[in-house]
Amino acid sequence: MKISELSECSGVSIASIKFYQREELLPEPERTSPNQAQYDTQHVDRLRLIRALVDVGGLSVATVRTVLAAAESDIPMDWAMGVAQRAIPGSVELPATTTRGVSEIDTITETLGWKVSPDNPGRGMAARVIDSYVQLDHEEILSVLPEYSRAAMIVAAADLASVGLQPSRMRMSETVVVGTVLGDSLFAGLRRMAQEDEARRRYAQVQS
Amino acid sequence: MKISELSECSGVSIASIKFYQREELLPEPERTSPNQAQYDTQHVDRLRLIRALVDVGGLSVATVRTVLAAAESDIPMDWAMGVAQRAIPGSVELPATTTRGVSEIDTITETLGWKVSPDNPGRGMAARVIDSYVQLDHEEILSVLPEYSRAAMIVAAADLASVGLQPSRMRMSETVVVGTVLGDSLFAGLRRMAQEDEARRRYAQVQS
Repeated sequence: MKISELSECSGVSIASIKFYQREELLPEPERTSPNQAQYDTQHVDRLRLIRALVDVGGLSVATVRTVLAAAESDIPMDWAMGVAQRAIPGSVELPATTTRGVSEIDTITETLGWKVSPDNPGRGMAARVIDSYVQLDHEEILSVLPEYSRAAMIVAAADLASVGLQPSRMRMSETVVVGTVLGDSLFAGLRRMAQEDEARRRYAQVQS
Repeated sequence: MKISELSECSGVSIASIKFYQREELLPEPERTSPNQAQYDTQHVDRLRLIRALVDVGGLSVATVRTVLAAAESDIPMDWAMGVAQRAIPGSVELPATTTRGVSEIDTITETLGWKVSPDNPGRGMAARVIDSYVQLDHEEILSVLPEYSRAAMIVAAADLASVGLQPSRMRMSETVVVGTVLGDSLFAGLRRMAQEDEARRRYAQVQS
């Protein structure tokens, strides 16, 4: 198909397609004549992947290149997944010193026997939340940690099972990025609904 | 204590204390002379609550007033919790029509027997995520819905248990707002760590 058809088919503007091509995110099309390039379904798929990473994942073009390179290489799958996971913006730097939050998170990780790299982006996120709880004089909320961790294991197992359903490494990396970003919102939504149901059970008078 | 001491003790500036007082978020101090007001620990506690709702919850001053009024009134506890939950910004409007996402969410809610109001803020959040998955041609990620819901019930039960530990309705509402906002990040962090652990189990070669 011609670039105009590719644009229509993928919903990506011709200018963006040319930009991704210059940035080498998109494979070269077949040249049927000096002024005529032929695109096919691999270009449609790749454009969909790039848009998902940029629009949903919030990745920069440079980071998209890193994720694609990891997906295309033959590094071990868990490493490629780590690259995708770490590419997502919003990671929180670990505090320079070992705060209460860091030690609480490391304790629970050890108790559960999780093998997690020191630079896992979730470690800083979780540690910072705990430090905020402590600062707000809400230490008692820490009592939720074991149940939260148990729920996180259920969600992670479901996440990895859905990644395992994907037909290619490229699509697996896409699933990690899209699923990590959207999965946070999906879980947050379900949590609010489950909270209302649980609150009714605990506090509601009989409602007719 | 004097206003200068209250400011030091709470970390809130004198200007902000006066502003909250004018906005009637802070109880009137005792007047010991026309130019001298005496504050006590109830003012320290209330300031901490206001700062938590504003800084962590992202609530506007008008919304803080609504949440405080609900916490102070004698409306049923589950209703007061609903007010706190709905006060948090970032809720997503339901699409005007019944999209695929809305019907998927309503189906799972019915299957699980959850009692959830149509305007629960999580319903729109979850429905929008599902609509995004479908648009991105990632329908297969919907297979995670039952496990996500099961995990959400575990987290919601832990959330409500920690709310139940609070000594007053005021503090319960604070816990709902702080716990809902921070809890999303805490869970997101633990999920990333659990994903890495799960990925290692599934994909890693023996590492020595």
